[in-house]
Amino acid sequence: MVELKNDERIDDLLAKENMQIIQSPTAFAFSLDAVLLADFTYVPIKRGKIIDLCTGNGVIPLLLSCRSKAQITGVEIQERLYDMAVRNVELNGLDDQLEMIHGDLKDMPARYGNRKFDLVTVNPPYFPTPRKKEQNLNDYLTIARHEIYCSLEDVVRSCSQLVRSGGKVSMVHRPGRMADILTLFRKYRIEPKRLRLVYPKMGREANVLLVEGIRDGNADLKNLPPLYAFTDGGEYTDELRKIIYGK
Amino acid sequence: MVELKNDERIDDLLAKENMQIIQSPTAFAFSLDAVLLADFTYVPIKRGKIIDLCTGNGVIPLLLSCRSKAQITGVEIQERLYDMAVRNVELNGLDDQLEMIHGDLKDMPARYGNRKFDLVTVNPPYFPTPRKKEQNLNDYLTIARHEIYCSLEDVVRSCSQLVRSGGKVSMVHRPGRMADILTLFRKYRIEPKRLRLVYPKMGREANVLLVEGIRDGNADLKNLPPLYAFTDGGEYTDELRKIIYGK
Repeated sequence: MVELKNDERIDDLLAKENMQIIQSPTAFAFSLDAVLLADFTYVPIKRGKIIDLCTGNGVIPLLLSCRSKAQITGVEIQERLYDMAVRNVELNGLDDQLEMIHGDLKDMPARYGNRKFDLVTVNPPYFPTPRKKEQNLNDYLTIARHEIYCSLEDVVRSCSQLVRSGGKVSMVHRPGRMADILTLFRKYRIEPKRLRLVYPKMGREANVLLVEGIRDGNADLKNLPPLYAFTDGGEYTDELRKIIYGK
Repeated sequence: MVELKNDERIDDLLAKENMQIIQSPTAFAFSLDAVLLADFTYVPIKRGKIIDLCTGNGVIPLLLSCRSKAQITGVEIQERLYDMAVRNVELNGLDDQLEMIHGDLKDMPARYGNRKFDLVTVNPPYFPTPRKKEQNLNDYLTIARHEIYCSLEDVVRSCSQLVRSGGKVSMVHRPGRMADILTLFRKYRIEPKRLRLVYPKMGREANVLLVEGIRDGNADLKNLPPLYAFTDGGEYTDELRKIIYGK
Protein backbone atom coordinates (compact mmCIF):
# COMPACT_ATOMS: atom_id res chain seq x y z
CA MET A 1 0.00 0.00 0.00
CA VAL A 2 1.37 3.40 -1.05
CA GLU A 3 1.23 6.18 1.54
CA LEU A 4 -0.87 9.31 0.94
CA LYS A 5 0.39 12.58 2.47
CA ASN A 6 -1.45 15.76 3.45
CA ASP A 7 -4.37 16.44 1.09
CA GLU A 8 -3.33 13.89 -1.54
CA ARG A 9 -5.85 11.63 -3.20
CA ILE A 10 -5.71 8.78 -5.72
CA ASP A 11 -7.41 9.40 -9.06
CA ASP A 12 -7.96 7.07 -12.00
CA LEU A 13 -5.55 7.96 -14.77
CA LEU A 14 -6.53 5.60 -17.54
CA ALA A 15 -9.54 3.42 -16.84
CA LYS A 16 -8.68 0.92 -19.57
CA GLU A 17 -5.16 0.33 -18.23
CA ASN A 18 -6.23 0.29 -14.57
CA MET A 19 -3.70 3.05 -13.99
CA GLN A 20 -3.99 5.32 -10.98
CA ILE A 21 -2.23 8.50 -9.92
CA ILE A 22 -1.61 10.33 -6.65
CA GLN A 23 -2.55 14.00 -6.92
CA SER A 24 -2.91 16.97 -4.61
CA PRO A 25 -5.21 19.92 -5.22
CA THR A 26 -2.71 22.28 -3.53
CA ALA A 27 0.58 20.80 -4.80
CA PHE A 28 0.02 19.30 -8.25
CA ALA A 29 -2.76 17.78 -10.28
CA PHE A 30 -2.02 16.77 -13.84
CA SER A 31 -3.52 18.82 -16.62
CA LEU A 32 -5.20 17.97 -19.88
CA ASP A 33 -2.08 19.37 -21.57
CA ALA A 34 0.06 16.53 -20.21
CA VAL A 35 -2.45 13.98 -21.50
CA LEU A 36 -2.45 15.67 -24.91
CA LEU A 37 1.36 15.60 -25.07
CA ALA A 38 1.51 11.92 -24.11
CA ASP A 39 -0.94 11.20 -26.93
CA PHE A 40 0.73 13.47 -29.50
CA THR A 41 4.34 12.50 -29.11
CA TYR A 42 6.20 9.89 -31.06
CA VAL A 43 7.55 7.11 -28.80
CA PRO A 44 10.10 4.39 -29.45
CA ILE A 45 7.94 1.27 -29.03
CA LYS A 46 10.19 -1.64 -28.13
CA ARG A 47 13.41 -0.23 -26.76
CA GLY A 48 15.26 3.01 -26.19
CA LYS A 49 15.45 5.74 -23.59
CA ILE A 50 12.96 8.51 -22.89
CA ILE A 51 13.38 11.43 -20.49
CA ASP A 52 10.48 13.61 -19.34
CA LEU A 53 11.48 17.01 -17.96
CA CYS A 54 9.26 19.01 -15.56
CA THR A 55 7.53 15.72 -14.85
CA GLY A 56 5.50 16.90 -11.84
CA ASN A 57 3.80 13.86 -10.30
CA GLY A 58 5.06 11.72 -13.19
CA VAL A 59 1.90 11.74 -15.26
CA ILE A 60 3.63 11.72 -18.66
CA PRO A 61 5.99 8.80 -17.87
CA LEU A 62 2.98 6.86 -16.53
CA LEU A 63 1.01 7.50 -19.72
CA LEU A 64 3.94 6.76 -22.03
CA SER A 65 4.53 3.42 -20.30
CA CYS A 66 1.24 2.28 -21.86
CA ARG A 67 2.64 2.94 -25.37
CA SER A 68 6.32 2.02 -25.04
CA LYS A 69 8.66 -0.53 -23.49
CA ALA A 70 11.49 2.04 -23.43
CA GLN A 71 13.16 3.01 -20.16
CA ILE A 72 11.58 6.27 -19.00
CA THR A 73 13.19 8.81 -16.68
CA GLY A 74 11.21 11.64 -15.10
CA VAL A 75 12.92 14.77 -13.75
CA GLU A 76 11.30 17.07 -11.20
CA ILE A 77 12.89 19.96 -9.33
CA GLN A 78 10.29 20.21 -6.55
CA GLU A 79 10.92 17.62 -3.86
CA ARG A 80 7.28 17.22 -2.86
CA LEU A 81 6.21 16.56 -6.45
CA TYR A 82 9.18 14.24 -7.03
CA ASP A 83 8.08 12.33 -3.95
CA MET A 84 4.57 11.96 -5.41
CA ALA A 85 6.09 10.79 -8.69
CA VAL A 86 8.15 8.10 -6.93
CA ARG A 87 5.05 6.81 -5.18
CA ASN A 88 3.11 6.89 -8.46
CA VAL A 89 5.68 4.56 -10.02
CA GLU A 90 5.28 2.23 -7.05
CA LEU A 91 1.48 2.50 -7.04
CA ASN A 92 1.36 1.27 -10.63
CA GLY A 93 4.09 -1.39 -10.27
CA LEU A 94 6.32 0.27 -12.87
CA ASP A 95 9.64 0.25 -10.98
CA ASP A 96 11.33 -1.80 -13.70
CA GLN A 97 10.55 0.72 -16.44
CA LEU A 98 10.26 4.15 -14.78
CA GLU A 99 12.82 6.08 -12.77
CA MET A 100 12.21 9.43 -11.09
CA ILE A 101 15.01 11.93 -10.46
CA HIS A 102 14.91 14.86 -8.05
CA GLY A 103 16.92 17.56 -9.74
CA ASP A 104 17.23 20.55 -12.03
CA LEU A 105 16.70 19.84 -15.74
CA LYS A 106 19.68 22.09 -16.50
CA ASP A 107 21.93 19.60 -14.65
CA MET A 108 20.70 16.53 -16.54
CA PRO A 109 23.10 16.77 -19.51
CA ALA A 110 26.04 16.73 -17.07
CA ARG A 111 24.46 13.82 -15.20
CA TYR A 112 23.54 11.63 -18.17
CA GLY A 113 25.91 12.92 -20.84
CA ASN A 114 24.94 14.58 -24.10
CA ARG A 115 22.84 12.91 -26.78
CA LYS A 116 21.79 9.92 -24.68
CA PHE A 117 18.00 9.86 -25.19
CA ASP A 118 15.80 8.83 -28.10
CA LEU A 119 13.02 11.12 -26.95
CA VAL A 120 12.70 14.08 -24.61
CA THR A 121 9.20 15.16 -23.58
CA VAL A 122 8.42 18.31 -21.63
CA ASN A 123 5.41 20.22 -20.36
CA PRO A 124 7.30 23.29 -19.10
CA PRO A 125 6.11 26.29 -17.09
CA TYR A 126 4.07 28.48 -19.43
CA PHE A 127 4.33 31.96 -17.96
CA PRO A 128 7.44 34.02 -18.58
CA THR A 129 6.93 36.91 -16.17
CA PRO A 130 6.37 35.85 -12.59
CA ARG A 131 5.38 39.27 -11.34
CA LYS A 132 4.60 39.09 -7.66
CA LYS A 133 0.95 39.98 -7.90
CA GLU A 134 0.33 37.56 -10.75
CA GLN A 135 1.90 34.62 -9.01
CA ASN A 136 -0.19 31.89 -7.56
CA LEU A 137 0.31 32.24 -3.84
CA ASN A 138 0.82 28.50 -3.55
CA ASP A 139 4.53 27.96 -4.16
CA TYR A 140 4.19 24.49 -5.66
CA LEU A 141 1.83 25.68 -8.35
CA THR A 142 3.73 28.91 -8.93
CA ILE A 143 6.95 27.01 -9.65
CA ALA A 144 5.15 24.56 -11.92
CA ARG A 145 3.53 27.37 -13.91
CA HIS A 146 6.11 30.17 -14.06
CA GLU A 147 9.59 30.31 -15.51
CA ILE A 148 11.21 30.66 -12.10
CA TYR A 149 13.73 27.82 -12.08
CA CYS A 150 14.02 27.56 -15.87
CA SER A 151 13.33 29.81 -18.83
CA LEU A 152 11.94 28.44 -22.08
CA GLU A 153 15.45 28.76 -23.50
CA ASP A 154 16.87 26.70 -20.60
CA VAL A 155 14.32 24.00 -21.37
CA VAL A 156 15.03 23.89 -25.11
CA ARG A 157 18.81 23.95 -24.57
CA SER A 158 18.58 21.02 -22.15
CA CYS A 159 16.33 19.07 -24.53
CA SER A 160 18.82 19.67 -27.32
CA GLN A 161 21.73 18.46 -25.22
CA LEU A 162 19.94 15.35 -23.95
CA VAL A 163 18.53 14.03 -27.23
CA ARG A 164 20.60 12.04 -29.69
CA SER A 165 21.04 13.22 -33.28
CA GLY A 166 17.91 12.02 -35.09
CA GLY A 167 16.05 11.70 -31.79
CA LYS A 168 12.87 13.62 -31.00
CA VAL A 169 11.79 16.40 -28.68
CA SER A 170 8.07 16.87 -27.92
CA MET A 171 6.65 19.85 -26.08
CA VAL A 172 3.26 21.19 -25.07
CA HIS A 173 2.91 24.94 -24.55
CA ARG A 174 0.66 27.91 -25.23
CA PRO A 175 0.10 28.91 -28.88
CA GLY A 176 1.06 32.49 -28.02
CA ARG A 177 4.64 31.27 -27.60
CA MET A 178 4.76 29.52 -31.00
CA ALA A 179 7.28 31.96 -32.48
CA ASP A 180 9.50 31.72 -29.37
CA ILE A 181 9.40 27.93 -29.47
CA LEU A 182 10.09 27.50 -33.18
CA THR A 183 12.90 30.07 -33.02
CA LEU A 184 14.51 28.38 -30.01
CA PHE A 185 14.11 24.90 -31.53
CA ARG A 186 15.98 26.14 -34.61
CA LYS A 187 18.63 27.87 -32.49
CA TYR A 188 19.36 24.59 -30.68
CA ARG A 189 19.20 22.44 -33.83
CA ILE A 190 15.86 20.78 -33.07
CA GLU A 191 14.07 21.05 -36.41
CA PRO A 192 10.28 21.39 -35.93
CA LYS A 193 8.62 18.53 -37.83
CA ARG A 194 5.07 18.03 -36.49
CA LEU A 195 2.77 20.63 -35.03
CA ARG A 196 -0.79 20.36 -33.79
CA LEU A 197 -3.04 23.09 -32.48
CA VAL A 198 -5.79 22.34 -29.99
CA TYR A 199 -8.91 24.52 -29.99
CA PRO A 200 -11.40 24.68 -27.14
CA LYS A 201 -14.19 24.44 -29.72
CA MET A 202 -14.89 25.22 -33.37
CA GLY A 203 -14.61 28.91 -34.24
CA ARG A 204 -12.35 29.77 -31.29
CA GLU A 205 -8.64 30.56 -31.17
CA ALA A 206 -6.23 27.74 -30.32
CA ASN A 207 -5.28 27.40 -26.65
CA VAL A 208 -2.77 24.54 -26.70
CA LEU A 209 0.25 23.98 -28.97
CA LEU A 210 1.82 20.56 -29.47
CA VAL A 211 5.14 20.48 -31.31
CA GLU A 212 7.70 17.79 -32.05
CA GLY A 213 11.14 18.30 -33.53
CA ILE A 214 14.01 16.11 -34.67
CA ARG A 215 17.56 16.84 -33.53
CA ASP A 216 19.53 17.78 -36.68
CA GLY A 217 16.49 17.03 -38.87
CA ASN A 218 15.69 18.49 -42.27
CA ALA A 219 13.37 21.46 -42.54
CA ASP A 220 9.76 20.49 -43.33
CA LEU A 221 6.98 21.03 -40.84
CA LYS A 222 3.71 19.08 -41.00
CA ASN A 223 0.71 20.87 -39.53
CA LEU A 224 -1.60 18.13 -38.32
CA PRO A 225 -5.41 18.41 -38.33
CA PRO A 226 -6.67 20.58 -35.47
CA LEU A 227 -8.00 18.95 -32.33
CA TYR A 228 -11.20 20.34 -30.86
CA ALA A 229 -11.65 19.76 -27.14
CA PHE A 230 -15.35 20.45 -26.67
CA THR A 231 -18.49 20.28 -28.74
CA ASP A 232 -20.79 23.27 -29.02
CA GLY A 233 -22.81 21.58 -26.30
CA GLY A 234 -19.82 21.71 -23.92
CA GLU A 235 -19.04 17.98 -23.93
CA TYR A 236 -15.73 16.34 -24.80
CA THR A 237 -15.44 15.67 -28.52
CA ASP A 238 -15.18 12.01 -29.51
CA GLU A 239 -11.52 12.49 -30.36
CA LEU A 240 -10.65 14.02 -26.98
CA ARG A 241 -12.67 11.39 -25.14
CA LYS A 242 -10.58 8.68 -26.82
CA ILE A 243 -7.37 10.46 -25.84
CA ILE A 244 -8.40 10.87 -22.21
CA TYR A 245 -10.05 7.53 -21.58
CA GLY A 246 -7.77 5.32 -23.67
CA LYS A 247 -8.13 3.96 -27.15
CA MET B 1 -11.60 48.84 -74.09
CA VAL B 2 -8.55 47.11 -72.62
CA GLU B 3 -6.41 45.08 -75.00
CA LEU B 4 -6.00 41.31 -74.56
CA LYS B 5 -2.67 39.80 -75.67
CA ASN B 6 -1.75 36.26 -76.72
CA ASP B 7 -3.84 33.68 -74.83
CA GLU B 8 -5.20 36.10 -72.25
CA ARG B 9 -8.82 36.03 -71.17
CA ILE B 10 -10.99 38.09 -68.83
CA ASP B 11 -12.38 36.31 -65.77
CA ASP B 12 -14.79 37.50 -63.13
CA LEU B 13 -12.88 38.25 -59.94
CA LEU B 14 -15.63 39.22 -57.52
CA ALA B 15 -19.15 38.94 -58.87
CA LYS B 16 -20.59 41.21 -56.19
CA GLU B 17 -18.18 44.03 -56.96
CA ASN B 18 -18.40 43.59 -60.75
CA MET B 19 -14.64 43.20 -60.72
CA GLN B 20 -12.86 41.50 -63.59
CA ILE B 21 -9.30 40.33 -64.14
CA ILE B 22 -7.11 39.57 -67.14
CA GLN B 23 -5.43 36.20 -66.80
CA SER B 24 -3.37 33.88 -68.96
CA PRO B 25 -3.23 30.11 -68.56
CA THR B 26 0.43 30.08 -69.66
CA ALA B 27 1.68 33.27 -67.95
CA PHE B 28 -0.27 33.82 -64.76
CA ALA B 29 -3.65 32.99 -63.30
CA PHE B 30 -4.34 34.03 -59.74
CA SER B 31 -4.53 31.32 -57.12
CA LEU B 32 -6.85 30.66 -54.23
CA ASP B 33 -3.92 31.54 -51.97
CA ALA B 34 -3.99 35.17 -53.14
CA VAL B 35 -7.72 35.36 -52.42
CA LEU B 36 -7.16 33.89 -48.95
CA LEU B 37 -4.42 36.43 -48.19
CA ALA B 38 -6.59 39.35 -49.35
CA ASP B 39 -9.32 38.11 -47.01
CA PHE B 40 -7.02 37.35 -44.06
CA THR B 41 -4.94 40.49 -43.93
CA TYR B 42 -5.60 43.55 -41.87
CA VAL B 43 -6.09 46.65 -44.03
CA PRO B 44 -6.11 50.35 -43.15
CA ILE B 45 -9.68 51.28 -44.10
CA LYS B 46 -9.80 54.99 -44.81
CA ARG B 47 -6.28 56.15 -45.57
CA GLY B 48 -2.69 54.94 -45.62
CA LYS B 49 -0.32 53.19 -47.98
CA ILE B 50 -0.22 49.53 -48.92
CA ILE B 51 2.40 47.76 -51.03
CA ASP B 52 1.89 44.27 -52.49
CA LEU B 53 5.09 42.48 -53.47
CA CYS B 54 5.17 39.67 -56.07
CA THR B 55 1.84 41.03 -57.25
CA GLY B 56 1.61 38.99 -60.49
CA ASN B 57 -1.39 40.25 -62.45
CA GLY B 58 -2.34 42.51 -59.54
CA VAL B 59 -4.98 40.29 -58.01
CA ILE B 60 -4.27 41.24 -54.39
CA PRO B 61 -4.34 45.03 -54.96
CA LEU B 62 -7.61 44.59 -56.88
CA LEU B 63 -9.15 42.62 -54.03
CA LEU B 64 -7.85 44.96 -51.32
CA SER B 65 -9.35 47.96 -53.13
CA CYS B 66 -12.78 46.57 -52.18
CA ARG B 67 -11.88 46.76 -48.48
CA SER B 68 -9.72 49.90 -48.25
CA LYS B 69 -9.44 53.42 -49.56
CA ALA B 70 -5.64 53.39 -49.01
CA GLN B 71 -3.25 53.94 -51.91
CA ILE B 72 -2.08 50.54 -53.10
CA THR B 73 1.15 49.83 -54.97
CA GLY B 74 1.82 46.49 -56.66
CA VAL B 75 5.35 45.36 -57.53
CA GLU B 76 6.08 42.72 -60.16
CA ILE B 77 9.46 41.74 -61.57
CA GLN B 78 8.16 39.99 -64.71
CA GLU B 79 7.35 42.52 -67.41
CA ARG B 80 4.57 40.50 -69.01
CA LEU B 81 2.78 40.06 -65.69
CA TYR B 82 3.34 43.71 -64.79
CA ASP B 83 1.77 44.62 -68.12
CA MET B 84 -1.28 42.50 -67.27
CA ALA B 85 -1.48 44.17 -63.84
CA VAL B 86 -1.45 47.65 -65.43
CA ARG B 87 -4.29 46.68 -67.74
CA ASN B 88 -6.19 45.14 -64.79
CA VAL B 89 -6.09 48.49 -63.01
CA GLU B 90 -7.43 50.17 -66.14
CA LEU B 91 -10.04 47.45 -66.76
CA ASN B 92 -11.52 48.09 -63.31
CA GLY B 93 -11.21 51.88 -63.39
CA LEU B 94 -8.91 51.96 -60.37
CA ASP B 95 -6.16 54.27 -61.71
CA ASP B 96 -6.72 56.75 -58.87
CA GLN B 97 -6.08 54.18 -56.14
CA LEU B 98 -3.78 51.52 -57.61
CA GLU B 99 -0.29 51.86 -59.05
CA MET B 100 1.74 49.06 -60.60
CA ILE B 101 5.54 49.08 -60.60
CA HIS B 102 7.78 46.96 -62.82
CA GLY B 103 10.77 46.15 -60.66
CA ASP B 104 12.58 43.97 -58.17
CA LEU B 105 11.14 43.93 -54.67
CA LYS B 106 14.67 44.15 -53.28
CA ASP B 107 15.00 47.60 -54.91
CA MET B 108 11.78 49.00 -53.44
CA PRO B 109 13.22 50.23 -50.10
CA ALA B 110 15.74 52.33 -52.05
CA ARG B 111 12.97 53.59 -54.33
CA TYR B 112 10.38 54.44 -51.68
CA GLY B 113 12.55 54.87 -48.58
CA ASN B 114 12.39 52.80 -45.40
CA ARG B 115 9.28 52.51 -43.23
CA LYS B 116 6.90 54.19 -45.66
CA PHE B 117 4.00 51.71 -45.75
CA ASP B 118 1.24 50.83 -43.30
CA LEU B 119 0.89 47.35 -44.74
CA VAL B 120 2.99 45.06 -46.90
CA THR B 121 1.30 42.01 -48.42
CA VAL B 122 3.12 39.26 -50.28
CA ASN B 123 2.36 35.92 -51.88
CA PRO B 124 5.96 34.95 -52.64
CA PRO B 125 7.38 32.04 -54.63
CA TYR B 126 6.95 28.91 -52.52
CA PHE B 127 9.68 26.58 -53.70
CA PRO B 128 13.21 27.07 -52.45
CA THR B 129 15.14 24.74 -54.73
CA PRO B 130 14.61 25.40 -58.42
CA ARG B 131 16.30 22.23 -59.64
CA LYS B 132 16.19 22.10 -63.39
CA LYS B 133 14.02 19.01 -63.69
CA GLU B 134 11.52 20.23 -61.11
CA GLN B 135 11.08 23.58 -62.74
CA ASN B 136 8.00 24.34 -64.67
CA LEU B 137 9.17 24.63 -68.26
CA ASN B 138 7.10 27.76 -68.68
CA ASP B 139 9.37 30.56 -67.50
CA TYR B 140 6.59 32.83 -66.28
CA LEU B 141 5.21 30.22 -63.93
CA THR B 142 8.66 29.02 -62.87
CA ILE B 143 9.66 32.51 -61.77
CA ALA B 144 6.36 33.01 -59.96
CA ARG B 145 6.71 29.72 -58.09
CA HIS B 146 10.43 29.33 -57.37
CA GLU B 147 12.85 31.43 -55.37
CA ILE B 148 14.81 32.42 -58.46
CA TYR B 149 14.80 36.22 -58.24
CA CYS B 150 14.24 36.38 -54.49
CA SER B 151 14.74 34.05 -51.54
CA LEU B 152 12.29 33.97 -48.65
CA GLU B 153 14.85 35.94 -46.66
CA ASP B 154 15.01 38.61 -49.42
CA VAL B 155 11.23 38.90 -49.24
CA VAL B 156 11.07 39.22 -45.45
CA ARG B 157 13.98 41.69 -45.36
CA SER B 158 12.27 43.90 -47.96
CA CYS B 159 8.95 43.73 -46.10
CA SER B 160 10.72 44.75 -42.91
CA GLN B 161 12.39 47.71 -44.59
CA LEU B 162 9.25 48.93 -46.32
CA VAL B 163 6.81 48.78 -43.39
CA ARG B 164 6.61 51.48 -40.75
CA SER B 165 7.14 50.68 -37.08
CA GLY B 166 3.76 49.41 -35.87
CA GLY B 167 2.71 48.62 -39.45
CA LYS B 168 1.76 45.14 -40.61
CA VAL B 169 3.19 42.49 -42.91
CA SER B 170 0.89 39.73 -44.21
CA MET B 171 2.11 36.67 -46.08
CA VAL B 172 0.66 33.49 -47.53
CA HIS B 173 2.95 30.49 -47.87
CA ARG B 174 3.16 26.75 -47.38
CA PRO B 175 2.81 25.40 -43.81
CA GLY B 176 6.00 23.40 -44.29
CA ARG B 177 7.90 26.70 -44.19
CA MET B 178 6.30 27.89 -40.94
CA ALA B 179 9.53 27.62 -38.93
CA ASP B 180 11.48 29.45 -41.66
CA ILE B 181 8.90 32.22 -41.80
CA LEU B 182 8.53 32.77 -38.06
CA THR B 183 12.32 32.71 -37.62
CA LEU B 184 12.87 35.22 -40.42
CA PHE B 185 10.04 37.47 -39.20
CA ARG B 186 11.73 37.58 -35.80
CA LYS B 187 15.15 38.16 -37.36
CA TYR B 188 13.82 41.21 -39.21
CA ARG B 189 11.77 42.51 -36.28
CA ILE B 190 8.35 41.62 -37.66
CA GLU B 191 6.68 40.03 -34.64
CA PRO B 192 4.20 37.30 -35.70
CA LYS B 193 0.78 38.25 -34.26
CA ARG B 194 -1.93 36.35 -36.19
CA LEU B 195 -1.66 32.97 -37.84
CA ARG B 196 -4.26 30.92 -39.64
CA LEU B 197 -3.91 27.46 -41.13
CA VAL B 198 -6.03 26.37 -44.07
CA TYR B 199 -6.88 22.68 -44.43
CA PRO B 200 -8.15 21.09 -47.65
CA LYS B 201 -10.79 19.29 -45.56
CA MET B 202 -11.35 18.01 -42.02
CA GLY B 203 -8.86 15.36 -40.91
CA ARG B 204 -6.16 16.39 -43.40
CA GLU B 205 -2.89 18.26 -42.88
CA ALA B 206 -2.83 22.01 -43.49
CA ASN B 207 -1.77 23.11 -46.98
CA VAL B 208 -1.83 26.91 -46.70
CA LEU B 209 -0.34 29.18 -44.03
CA LEU B 210 -1.52 32.75 -43.47
CA VAL B 211 0.56 34.88 -41.13
CA GLU B 212 0.56 38.54 -40.16
CA GLY B 213 3.19 40.34 -38.11
CA ILE B 214 3.67 43.80 -36.66
CA ARG B 215 6.95 45.65 -37.16
CA ASP B 216 8.50 46.05 -33.69
CA GLY B 217 5.40 44.48 -32.07
CA ASN B 218 5.22 42.66 -28.75
CA ALA B 219 5.46 38.87 -28.69
CA ASP B 220 2.05 37.18 -28.54
CA LEU B 221 0.76 35.10 -31.41
CA LYS B 222 -2.95 34.41 -31.90
CA ASN B 223 -3.73 31.18 -33.72
CA LEU B 224 -7.06 31.77 -35.46
CA PRO B 225 -9.66 29.07 -36.03
CA PRO B 226 -8.71 26.78 -38.92
CA LEU B 227 -10.26 27.32 -42.33
CA TYR B 228 -11.46 24.26 -44.21
CA ALA B 229 -11.57 24.61 -47.99
CA PHE B 230 -13.76 21.70 -49.01
CA THR B 231 -16.53 19.63 -47.49
CA ASP B 232 -16.27 15.84 -47.40
CA GLY B 233 -18.43 15.94 -50.53
CA GLY B 234 -15.76 17.98 -52.36
CA GLU B 235 -17.66 21.29 -52.45
CA TYR B 236 -16.46 24.64 -51.17
CA THR B 237 -17.29 25.10 -47.49
CA ASP B 238 -19.67 27.95 -46.69
CA GLU B 239 -16.80 29.95 -45.23
CA LEU B 240 -14.61 29.59 -48.33
CA ARG B 241 -17.52 30.34 -50.62
CA LYS B 242 -18.05 33.64 -48.81
CA ILE B 243 -14.37 34.50 -49.15
CA ILE B 244 -14.27 33.73 -52.88
CA TYR B 245 -17.59 35.19 -53.98
CA GLY B 246 -17.68 38.23 -51.71
CA LYS B 247 -19.33 38.85 -48.41
